Amino acid sequence: MTPFELSVQLFLQLAVILAACRLVGWLVRPLGQPQVVAEMITGVLLGPSLLGLLAPVAQARLFPDASKPTIYVLAQIGLALYMFLIGLELDLDLIRHRVRSAVAVSWAGIATPFVLGAGLAFALRERFPLFAPGVSSLQAMLFFGAALSITAFPMLARIISERGLAGTSLGTLALAAGSLDDAAAWCLLAVVLSGFTGDLSIALLAVGGGAVYLFGMLTLGRRALGRLFAWIGARSERAELELPATLVLLALAAWTTDSLGIYAVFGAFVLGAAMPRGVLGTAMPGGTLAGRLEGRIGPLTTTLLLPMFFVNSGLNTAIGLLDSWAMWGVALLVLAVAILGKGVACGVAARLCGEPPRDAVAIGALMNARGLMELILLNIAYERGLITQTLFTMLVLMAVVTTLMAVPAFNRVYGDRERPA
Amino acid sequence: MTPFELSVQLFLQLAVILAACRLVGWLVRPLGQPQVVAEMITGVLLGPSLLGLLAPVAQARLFPDASKPTIYVLAQIGLALYMFLIGLELDLDLIRHRVRSAVAVSWAGIATPFVLGAGLAFALRERFPLFAPGVSSLQAMLFFGAALSITAFPMLARIISERGLAGTSLGTLALAAGSLDDAAAWCLLAVVLSGFTGDLSIALLAVGGGAVYLFGMLTLGRRALGRLFAWIGARSERAELELPATLVLLALAAWTTDSLGIYAVFGAFVLGAAMPRGVLGTAMPGGTLAGRLEGRIGPLTTTLLLPMFFVNSGLNTAIGLLDSWAMWGVALLVLAVAILGKGVACGVAARLCGEPPRDAVAIGALMNARGLMELILLNIAYERGLITQTLFTMLVLMAVVTTLMAVPAFNRVYGDRERPA
Repeated sequence: MTPFELSVQLFLQLAVILAACRLVGWLVRPLGQPQVVAEMITGVLLGPSLLGLLAPVAQARLFPDASKPTIYVLAQIGLALYMFLIGLELDLDLIRHRVRSAVAVSWAGIATPFVLGAGLAFALRERFPLFAPGVSSLQAMLFFGAALSITAFPMLARIISERGLAGTSLGTLALAAGSLDDAAAWCLLAVVLSGFTGDLSIALLAVGGGAVYLFGMLTLGRRALGRLFAWIGARSERAELELPATLVLLALAAWTTDSLGIYAVFGAFVLGAAMPRGVLGTAMPGGTLAGRLEGRIGPLTTTLLLPMFFVNSGLNTAIGLLDSWAMWGVALLVLAVAILGKGVACGVAARLCGEPPRDAVAIGALMNARGLMELILLNIAYERGLITQTLFTMLVLMAVVTTLMAVPAFNRVYGDRERPA
Repeated sequence: MTPFELSVQLFLQLAVILAACRLVGWLVRPLGQPQVVAEMITGVLLGPSLLGLLAPVAQARLFPDASKPTIYVLAQIGLALYMFLIGLELDLDLIRHRVRSAVAVSWAGIATPFVLGAGLAFALRERFPLFAPGVSSLQAMLFFGAALSITAFPMLARIISERGLAGTSLGTLALAAGSLDDAAAWCLLAVVLSGFTGDLSIALLAVGGGAVYLFGMLTLGRRALGRLFAWIGARSERAELELPATLVLLALAAWTTDSLGIYAVFGAFVLGAAMPRGVLGTAMPGGTLAGRLEGRIGPLTTTLLLPMFFVNSGLNTAIGLLDSWAMWGVALLVLAVAILGKGVACGVAARLCGEPPRDAVAIGALMNARGLMELILLNIAYERGLITQTLFTMLVLMAVVTTLMAVPAFNRVYGDRERPA
């Protein structure tokens, strides 16, 4: 396809994708599901799992192979922007203030699914076509452990803030534990991927470079960013530099971590976390720096670019690959272990730390949702040739089901009316 | 390049492009030039005309051929979003209220450059390698006429509004004439391109389909859009549909006009012009519908996506092709005819309609700027194989120079301090 044909095709794809996302959103709204869940499902429905099954010709015409790189690249830009915003929402002070429970819950939410996942991988990898040939036992176990440990931090944060629970004991604990978990799972993935390359120098570059990037950004980088944005905010004629400066830094961060082998999403997330908090800029109207950036980057990112990621992911999901009772059995086993290892374990840990039973159940429900984060990890692993399309599909189903469970389970113990006045 | 490599490359390109745009912006700011001028220039500088000359290896590494389709597609999305916003700013009532002068000025601003341009094309096309083989005299004349008739409507609108002249006699006239001119030049381009295909049915589809689209959108479409957005605005839980509904419509509009052969930019612009005006939605906070959409679409579009268009255009501009005195002579002749046919003619027409001399000069200066619009037209013609890279380069230079002239010329007669308090 010529570039012109690619762009014509893309406009058609965009119209279909965005309309389908809203249609599905409208269908799942009565179940209390947020829009992001609708988009996860839409991605799967537009891929080979549904549209490709019902109307293979139309599906192939709408998403020809030649157009996939375009969708992929747009998805990557959307993801980098989105993960930056998620990092921007992260409150590092929150973690400090509730260290004990947060560490216990997040530790339970990492260690349990990791051990269970690793065991499951060890038991299954010889019998079912889950991993690509050449993947060692250790790599398979590490990956499966990481894949089950993921928490949908952005979704968790959204539910907490929608319900007006951000300042409460439950909200603080869930946010702190969720962000610790997420950071840990990403580090695990970096280790798995760097191990997978087989080349020690690449692995060292990824792990070492990633660590240097992370600590550099959270110390020196944080201070430098504070100075830069205070300087920009100090005079009104510099105000227009705020967004371009942010985007240049974001592109550099994404490029750096991509080049190190630990992926753009990680670089963007850490940059967001390291950005200065507060108003910054007497010359500038309205809200904090984070609020201003969110207002300018958020709408187009979540509405236009992020759905491309879900579709990109859905195009690789083929439920048809689960074509036997045994396969479905494995898929259900994975799901059960995922819920037990994450949701149940986190709830128990919270209860043991003295949180009230209602809060413990709510925390388990929230931590259990895998959401977008799981899809990101799966897509990276699939693209790098670590896992087969079959395991990809099983884990996408697990991500969708655990995400779908979160809001109803949370509402059950916490009610659905506790919104801010 | 794999999709992953493409996305890594794109992050690097984005960092360089956005940083370069701001650096050039900072350099031209003392000359009173707006940011969009800086971005036009940056595009040329990052292409073969400067970076490719100074550091050919680095340039080729930064912009490998394989990455060009990605840049092109992003540029198209950015353009469609941008043209939609430009259409949204268009006030159809304004044109109605100052019909006589507006028609005179815009007529002068179309007819004069068109006749001069057509004559120039006729005189030059045999002697210099300006048009692709197989382009007829008529097509060459039509194209050249259209290319000289372009007005940088978005830039004109921005200058008028920045100076607080939107409600004044001068402002109204310039906006009305500029928008009429722009619409006419786009129709001309549609005719030229449809004629160029050689196939009558394709030409008829473009001209007929374009006319149906235009009039359909401004009559039935306008009413339907009014109802749709009034319905969305009527209840607060529908408010979040405003942006996705707009984007679906925009993607459909872009796809439709692209498919008809009259390009996405046209469809997006007309959709913007047909969108309902006013607040629309008692349930929704802040500003008009147009203001809300501009706030959510504008920042990322102008800061992140639109620079991709300038770079895409700059990558095709090769000043090195003007490698003889004769070629530079032709380039200067084109520039002189462009200024005479558009700026001088519009100023004279305004004066003949009784506008004060100062206003007449200001109008000439504003109408003369070709800006982004010219680059869009040139890129389409180049991509369709109508013009050579040599003529492309000459006309890019003409666009940059006429655009650079506008603000200093305007300031000279109108002063540079007449900003709103």
